[in-house]
Amino acid sequence: MNNLISMRDLKRAEIESILDFAARIEQGDVRPDLTGKLAALLFAEPSTRTHFSFDTAMKRMGGQTLSMSGTSSTSLQKGESLADTLKTISMYADLIVLRSAVEGSARFASEVVDIPVINAGDGANQHPTQALLDLYSIIKTQGRLDGLSIALVGDLKFGRTAHSLVQALSEFSPRFFFISPQHLALPSYLLEDLREAGVPYQELTSLDGIVPDLDIMYVTRVQRERFVDPEEYERVKNSYVITPAVLEGAQPTLRVLHPLPRVNEVSTAVDRTTHAYYFQQAANGVPVRQAILAKLLGTEGTK
Amino acid sequence: MNNLISMRDLKRAEIESILDFAARIEQGDVRPDLTGKLAALLFAEPSTRTHFSFDTAMKRMGGQTLSMSGTSSTSLQKGESLADTLKTISMYADLIVLRSAVEGSARFASEVVDIPVINAGDGANQHPTQALLDLYSIIKTQGRLDGLSIALVGDLKFGRTAHSLVQALSEFSPRFFFISPQHLALPSYLLEDLREAGVPYQELTSLDGIVPDLDIMYVTRVQRERFVDPEEYERVKNSYVITPAVLEGAQPTLRVLHPLPRVNEVSTAVDRTTHAYYFQQAANGVPVRQAILAKLLGTEGTK
Amino acid sequence: MNNLISMRDLKRAEIESILDFAARIEQGDVRPDLTGKLAALLFAEPSTRTHFSFDTAMKRMGGQTLSMSGTSSTSLQKGESLADTLKTISMYADLIVLRSAVEGSARFASEVVDIPVINAGDGANQHPTQALLDLYSIIKTQGRLDGLSIALVGDLKFGRTAHSLVQALSEFSPRFFFISPQHLALPSYLLEDLREAGVPYQELTSLDGIVPDLDIMYVTRVQRERFVDPEEYERVKNSYVITPAVLEGAQPTLRVLHPLPRVNEVSTAVDRTTHAYYFQQAANGVPVRQAILAKLLGTEGTK
Repeated sequence: MNNLISMRDLKRAEIESILDFAARIEQGDVRPDLTGKLAALLFAEPSTRTHFSFDTAMKRMGGQTLSMSGTSSTSLQKGESLADTLKTISMYADLIVLRSAVEGSARFASEVVDIPVINAGDGANQHPTQALLDLYSIIKTQGRLDGLSIALVGDLKFGRTAHSLVQALSEFSPRFFFISPQHLALPSYLLEDLREAGVPYQELTSLDGIVPDLDIMYVTRVQRERFVDPEEYERVKNSYVITPAVLEGAQPTLRVLHPLPRVNEVSTAVDRTTHAYYFQQAANGVPVRQAILAKLLGTEGTK
Repeated sequence: MNNLISMRDLKRAEIESILDFAARIEQGDVRPDLTGKLAALLFAEPSTRTHFSFDTAMKRMGGQTLSMSGTSSTSLQKGESLADTLKTISMYADLIVLRSAVEGSARFASEVVDIPVINAGDGANQHPTQALLDLYSIIKTQGRLDGLSIALVGDLKFGRTAHSLVQALSEFSPRFFFISPQHLALPSYLLEDLREAGVPYQELTSLDGIVPDLDIMYVTRVQRERFVDPEEYERVKNSYVITPAVLEGAQPTLRVLHPLPRVNEVSTAVDRTTHAYYFQQAANGVPVRQAILAKLLGTEGTK
Repeated sequence: MNNLISMRDLKRAEIESILDFAARIEQGDVRPDLTGKLAALLFAEPSTRTHFSFDTAMKRMGGQTLSMSGTSSTSLQKGESLADTLKTISMYADLIVLRSAVEGSARFASEVVDIPVINAGDGANQHPTQALLDLYSIIKTQGRLDGLSIALVGDLKFGRTAHSLVQALSEFSPRFFFISPQHLALPSYLLEDLREAGVPYQELTSLDGIVPDLDIMYVTRVQRERFVDPEEYERVKNSYVITPAVLEGAQPTLRVLHPLPRVNEVSTAVDRTTHAYYFQQAANGVPVRQAILAKLLGTEGTK
């Protein structure tokens, strides 16, 4: 593994290796030492959570970071090409973490520089470290990845975390329920991949009747700005708000995940149920990103 | 001590314990080791001085920081609640330092998260680490906190550093002089507290005649924007500008303090007198914040 | 050496001492330890490259940084004087790195504070650490500094890196070619200095005929905004774009340098020739800045 650009690049064994390594880091069985290592965190789009999570992961292992947020303080302003900016930064840092609004920019970066690149989200395309921490959260709460019933709820068209997660889980014999307004359905290329792989799924417009079957309910935000017709938004929005009432009849082991930030699509009343797992899910981002950083920097550590 | 939100929460013995610990840190008698510790510095309002001071304090002890400045790069932009932002950050960091324009937000934060919170200024309300470094500066220059004559000069209505300092000093038998334009006088709830505690004070509109009595002159800025009537501002502003002439007749041990930044309310000519202490006061912020951070992180260190 | 403000302050022996120290750091012969040291990086103007380079240099030696970018988050907004801001920051940090749009501000800073100041660019005036890394790049590629034929190409009027480099090289018996549009020629005060020092130079408006003579071609950007007449810009711009064709007939040892960021004044086709050295030049900034920081912080290290 030289870069982490897309979940599609990872085979099942590689995913399991990362998750196992993260678990050993979290439990203190292994302590990678990144003293003297520098990761450049380049966030063209704002992202408190992902930025802090990578920053934390580096610093918890003794490493350091260089941070560039927004485009206001960059040489890009002066007309420099992205390739030149990346090449120059690769002269300073040992690894680049890149968040960009432009799909494909992480792949491009990995082709331009000689140091490892981690995709921290490229437009509506991929967000593989989020997918890996989602998998980590699933295995921690369910004890396994294989053979689970998983609902993805909300905006499945533009939600890159949903896309990465569907691809990642496909290797683990899931049963999928895709719950979304029709015009925010999962892209057809992902559905085709599932059909080819023989993964069973249902597309639905509400959660009615399926909650008792679920092991994982993965909720994403339905954004008002995605709707052309405001009345359509008002009509459907409440179908995608998770409340304790929606969770009635769920298995005790059901966990509600959300990539955060949430606005109102999971009510705060759910926070007080045993089903809520989204803040712990965010916390899981640290050991998972530690594992990825340590692997890419070639310092997997010893006990 | 689990949080530091308001000076009102601190008893005299706790204040003395913090100041004593800071002195031992400054003198090198104790070296708290914060290696592996992470403080999140969340500054919704800009503050070079306070931000740098906390950043310095963490790093001088081997700790690290996560920094978020302004609101532009935060999930708050995406509609996330402050509670969710704070809960998420508490998954990454060991402690939160919060500066906010909204009164009460630090108290709110301490109720929402399970890690220690330090109030680094919440609107016009409190700024307890500033009050503690002010006390530290007073004890360093006067040799004691008890029984001093202290003038607070300038905008006493909106100046949160003045509010925190008045509360903090009340425990130490002070004699107060409050010098301000009438409509920028100290809030009545603070005056009531003083009367109840039997602390003597005088409210005045100028320093005339009292300078020889003073041990400490604490100056704050009179901001033009606080005046409805520009002519009123022009008429009073020079009553609150400290020059060497104003300091004639002062005791040699009088020290002029100012929370900084200053605009023109202390003339630079005062910098060259022995009474000037505001830059050293800023420097004192580092050991005081080291003491607070180390106490809250449970690593008070050993010699 | 207490500060680094201008190349004019450095004697030949001091320059050689810095470059030699940088080489020993790069080769791992000496490892300065800056653990516990704090450098404040104050960048009033954006500069990814220089900021990252200093940040990297500090962190590679175990040191830490305090960063302030732009003026939006500073007390300057509140009307504080630059002197007060600098004095206060000097209470926290061990050294100040200052980038400013205002010529002379680094010199001013060094007079106001009691800690070392490094000029990281003050308007069109000086950028001495850039000049030193340029010298370091020249000695690394040519094996010597003395007696080289050097062309400076592009905007020589406003390019502070060109100014600092001309001054720095003057001590090393160079032969200069200054290639620029007439109204962007090197300032006359620099030409006078060269004449007084007996340094041979030619002022030209194109590279025609001189390429085979060159050891170093130092290219800077010709910015459209420097031209009053857009037609004049269109007419001359291609005279200052370096392509593989321009380099035909060059010595194999010719190296093309550029302070970066480039826009189009060196074509990306040149990147694939052995003459390209600008990215490695950027990389050289790290050991050179390590050497300067370690010297100024009095921790030159041991093997």
